[in-house]
Amino acid sequence: MNSFGRIFRVSLVGESHGPAVGVLVDGCPAGVPVAEKDFDRDLGRRRPGAKGTTARIESDRPEIVSGVFRGRTTGAPVFIRFGNAAQDSAAYEAIKDTPRPGHADFTGWKKYGGFNDYRGGGHFSGRLTIGLVAAGVLAKKIIRPVTVEAWLVEAGGNRDIEAAVAAAVKAKDSIGGIVACEARGVPAGIGEPFFDSAESLLSHVILAIPAVRGIEFGAGFEAAGMKGSRHNDPIAGRDGRTATNNAGGINGGITNGNPVLFRVAVKPTASIARPQKTVNLKTGKAAEIVVGGRHDTCIALRVPVVVEAAASVVLADLMLLEQLIPRVFKGKSR
Amino acid sequence: MNSFGRIFRVSLVGESHGPAVGVLVDGCPAGVPVAEKDFDRDLGRRRPGAKGTTARIESDRPEIVSGVFRGRTTGAPVFIRFGNAAQDSAAYEAIKDTPRPGHADFTGWKKYGGFNDYRGGGHFSGRLTIGLVAAGVLAKKIIRPVTVEAWLVEAGGNRDIEAAVAAAVKAKDSIGGIVACEARGVPAGIGEPFFDSAESLLSHVILAIPAVRGIEFGAGFEAAGMKGSRHNDPIAGRDGRTATNNAGGINGGITNGNPVLFRVAVKPTASIARPQKTVNLKTGKAAEIVVGGRHDTCIALRVPVVVEAAASVVLADLMLLEQLIPRVFKGKSR
Amino acid sequence: MNSFGRIFRVSLVGESHGPAVGVLVDGCPAGVPVAEKDFDRDLGRRRPGAKGTTARIESDRPEIVSGVFRGRTTGAPVFIRFGNAAQDSAAYEAIKDTPRPGHADFTGWKKYGGFNDYRGGGHFSGRLTIGLVAAGVLAKKIIRPVTVEAWLVEAGGNRDIEAAVAAAVKAKDSIGGIVACEARGVPAGIGEPFFDSAESLLSHVILAIPAVRGIEFGAGFEAAGMKGSRHNDPIAGRDGRTATNNAGGINGGITNGNPVLFRVAVKPTASIARPQKTVNLKTGKAAEIVVGGRHDTCIALRVPVVVEAAASVVLADLMLLEQLIPRVFKGKSR
Amino acid sequence: MNSFGRIFRVSLVGESHGPAVGVLVDGCPAGVPVAEKDFDRDLGRRRPGAKGTTARIESDRPEIVSGVFRGRTTGAPVFIRFGNAAQDSAAYEAIKDTPRPGHADFTGWKKYGGFNDYRGGGHFSGRLTIGLVAAGVLAKKIIRPVTVEAWLVEAGGNRDIEAAVAAAVKAKDSIGGIVACEARGVPAGIGEPFFDSAESLLSHVILAIPAVRGIEFGAGFEAAGMKGSRHNDPIAGRDGRTATNNAGGINGGITNGNPVLFRVAVKPTASIARPQKTVNLKTGKAAEIVVGGRHDTCIALRVPVVVEAAASVVLADLMLLEQLIPRVFKGKSR
Repeated sequence: MNSFGRIFRVSLVGESHGPAVGVLVDGCPAGVPVAEKDFDRDLGRRRPGAKGTTARIESDRPEIVSGVFRGRTTGAPVFIRFGNAAQDSAAYEAIKDTPRPGHADFTGWKKYGGFNDYRGGGHFSGRLTIGLVAAGVLAKKIIRPVTVEAWLVEAGGNRDIEAAVAAAVKAKDSIGGIVACEARGVPAGIGEPFFDSAESLLSHVILAIPAVRGIEFGAGFEAAGMKGSRHNDPIAGRDGRTATNNAGGINGGITNGNPVLFRVAVKPTASIARPQKTVNLKTGKAAEIVVGGRHDTCIALRVPVVVEAAASVVLADLMLLEQLIPRVFKGKSR
Repeated sequence: MNSFGRIFRVSLVGESHGPAVGVLVDGCPAGVPVAEKDFDRDLGRRRPGAKGTTARIESDRPEIVSGVFRGRTTGAPVFIRFGNAAQDSAAYEAIKDTPRPGHADFTGWKKYGGFNDYRGGGHFSGRLTIGLVAAGVLAKKIIRPVTVEAWLVEAGGNRDIEAAVAAAVKAKDSIGGIVACEARGVPAGIGEPFFDSAESLLSHVILAIPAVRGIEFGAGFEAAGMKGSRHNDPIAGRDGRTATNNAGGINGGITNGNPVLFRVAVKPTASIARPQKTVNLKTGKAAEIVVGGRHDTCIALRVPVVVEAAASVVLADLMLLEQLIPRVFKGKSR
Repeated sequence: MNSFGRIFRVSLVGESHGPAVGVLVDGCPAGVPVAEKDFDRDLGRRRPGAKGTTARIESDRPEIVSGVFRGRTTGAPVFIRFGNAAQDSAAYEAIKDTPRPGHADFTGWKKYGGFNDYRGGGHFSGRLTIGLVAAGVLAKKIIRPVTVEAWLVEAGGNRDIEAAVAAAVKAKDSIGGIVACEARGVPAGIGEPFFDSAESLLSHVILAIPAVRGIEFGAGFEAAGMKGSRHNDPIAGRDGRTATNNAGGINGGITNGNPVLFRVAVKPTASIARPQKTVNLKTGKAAEIVVGGRHDTCIALRVPVVVEAAASVVLADLMLLEQLIPRVFKGKSR
Repeated sequence: MNSFGRIFRVSLVGESHGPAVGVLVDGCPAGVPVAEKDFDRDLGRRRPGAKGTTARIESDRPEIVSGVFRGRTTGAPVFIRFGNAAQDSAAYEAIKDTPRPGHADFTGWKKYGGFNDYRGGGHFSGRLTIGLVAAGVLAKKIIRPVTVEAWLVEAGGNRDIEAAVAAAVKAKDSIGGIVACEARGVPAGIGEPFFDSAESLLSHVILAIPAVRGIEFGAGFEAAGMKGSRHNDPIAGRDGRTATNNAGGINGGITNGNPVLFRVAVKPTASIARPQKTVNLKTGKAAEIVVGGRHDTCIALRVPVVVEAAASVVLADLMLLEQLIPRVFKGKSR
């Protein structure tokens, strides 16, 4: 199902080379002020343009189709549409029978019996994350004063990220990266025991982001090598604050009032300007392809804002469930 | 919500020191042969007893309360109950106002306004995983010939696991570990794009397991430091098999026919036999506690079978959705 | 799926002649006082015994398995079990290949490939409603001061219900009835537009009750013959109160602050002590059966308390969603 | 939540006087042939124009935004947009503080704290049903050879429907009606026990349709006055066919292979060209309004195609769950 959330529910639609992509947010409280310009900052951060990002430039203007009236959410479902303009499908026709390694070409073809839209990855395209970023803008508004911040900590195994990207561009190769995320001000007590633990829900959405291959909370994989006496965070106050934060702000699936911390592994961009081995789906014979089109050298550069959006959506949903966000925002009405 | 799954839906109930824990499985196909002894192997693997595991011994006999008639599932909800016998609540009364570091004591108290059952961790106890293991037994039956296997690859950062546990026991400390999991025979095409990607659903359930702090698929966090030319798995056949498996059997959220591989970080057991710093919730003053009771030195030893169960539940759900498992198992009826 | 609700989520398990039936309530707020005796009144109303009801007598004692600690809900899932004692399966063996008209014997056999538990209707038995009534007791506690009351307005087309039942008993036949329900004090603003309208959710649960064949809100089917000028309820105050209540307290799927009113059609008990025509599932030949066992002449007599429970569960769920019920009930804690 | 369905999942968006309304269908099988003209017939039946229907004329052209590629569904979410052109909001400004009796004006205002879009009923408008009709067109394609047909059996209590409408137009009043629906060819065995009974799911969606106030299956409310000996349908064959069909094709919540029959009560159109009593929300004082704008005398005339769509959506969802509809439609691919 292409939706996530129990109360603040996000659905993504569209294809890379179709007329548009979009996002449906059902369950957003009424009365939240929303203007097109509110999306500028986060859409800008997701946007390509910098060294190491794709040359495809879209206007990325959000068209608010429903759920907003006179600058405020109405409580009805919000649908935001992003027109696709800069499509260049020609390159994909040439390779439609030779699935690109590392992409969803083969799996989409298999799952949908060959009816998938293969142009630019179709519905599997990273283009779809624009809708998640837009939902994140709404989520960030309602979780205030909680803040969520994500950033790239290394690319291609290198903390000097610019150098890493430059080297990869030169090598006509791609690189991955690691994104860290911190949510501050998250109240203690959100998340559910067991299946809807805060980690479960965050992981669910984060692992839905294309190219993400792992997540770890607090000390994460390093915790596996630590002693309990060092890993346990001494509790330092009745408000739950701890002297260290190896738990990443979550115990037993429920936030403990400390910052929520996690790290995300992003694989290298699958599209590279080098010959790769694959198979021809029609003939069954081995084939070699060079993926044309426009691609990011380091897709991880554009992932932090998507991670922020994903985490904000989860927090919005859990805070609504926990009644920490009202169903109607105060403010002047009609 | 304490449930997971769209078609094969699992819910967990109970508390560590209540009369029983149990699992409800709704949506299990009809006609699946089920006998109490079928649970022996996996429940035995989850059971304590070995060096480094708790001294609490329960009979762990599964009572099949509903959904099974004359040795076959009926298609109605299956409820399996596990009585709690070996409860020793005294130790918990002494520390009920001083939350144990690394446990859900503080978060449960906060979330539920002090009404949580604090004895033995209550509903947050690892005891609850017995129900998930039982659900996994059912799931494994229906996903055949798909097989899921998990094992501990290191404990306390050490590949000599026995030595690591012995050292930790001696130090009156606890250690974590890393669990690897491989599912073989998974057909290509299961998982949904974006929010219900195979990674999303697996992560959701795996991160619900107490003590799990991270998950990575295929090359995982290492992928972040790899070049695309090395990370991309060359496609070697029309069936989707690849020359390498850095993707861990999943592209674009959908299985590609190769083994599904992931690794799980397990933190050190939170309960240790050393004094720890905390706070008294009534007085607000700093306090020191020594956690009595019976505990695992290395809970990670018991996690593999739980990971297998979690993964099997996800695969059962997705295979039912994809119509790769029938709603009625063939065989002789009444 | 055998569950209902987004926040206050109810699942039913068990079979008529299995060891037990039960109910799982996930999402009940913490701190709600619960004692076994609280269930007496409603379970008593559901219980047989009066003229026109079955002779099967169960103790109907609720065993609270989980989610309650020292007399209060903990916030964890509540599981309540009702042991089955008075089972008499012999009568069902004789007719297992000849499905009883008006029962789920044929449909259960068909759906589950012959693996269904046919004894006493198995999972389709009215016995399952005991769990819904128990969930209703919890729901009624938390929706206070909202009250829900249901009653039988006619049986067998007769407002003299005792006379109607006596005549049916004499005729060795069965009769149906009409149940009215009124919820008072329901705040304006609950229910969601379109798919989760208050009518949709109430209908969903009410139509799940065995033997229910229809529902109508406010003026209901009569409204179809009314003029708009008469059907529209004049609005008489800023609180939404209306001069008449043809709308049954709901406009556009959302409560308007007036009493919520609906009526429910209950069919005659399917089991009758007369010969009936059916088919032998093994031979395919026409057959005649007389249904033995113990049955209600007028099952509708026992339906009002189930309708109350169903409506209370929906109201609890919607009021939690609308943040009109807190997640933690105030009161003294440990 | 403004969505319905577990596998074939439908969400509605938009407002009467916003830029567009639309429908999102997630979970539609891949490979289903879809062309804009396929929607003509059903959209035409929903469209106003005949005597007794509103004068608002929209082009109602479906724009397929996503999920369809070269004339076939791709398996990705389908979004269909209907632009709003013929908006006339002026009439609504005058009455925005005086809620119209029988409409959702008051409840929407109350629920959303005054932030609702009140123009033309906003998100509560019957305009939203166009999306449901479009989803129904897709559903009807995939449930073939199952057919669903609905028709108006009476209007204003009169079987001569034209006469009834003419009289109401003359009286400047409105009338309701009763819609019957029959689904033929529905296989035995669909629907789930208890909460997701076929009646529960059908009722859920049908009662979401604006103006619907009741539903009854088979003999329905009449069954309440029948004897069991007459109401029970004798089983006439191993395929489950019955001599009569008082059950309306459903026993124990599961279809029995006979036609599924139900009837729906539609209230008179709330908008009438007569003065009505209401209250001014700002002043709290009694007020009288005359609702301008363009309205249907008998909205029930346009309801049958919406009922068909609703029922088809439920059947599609249940047949997918029961694996009676494939996830990929056979046919030539790329």
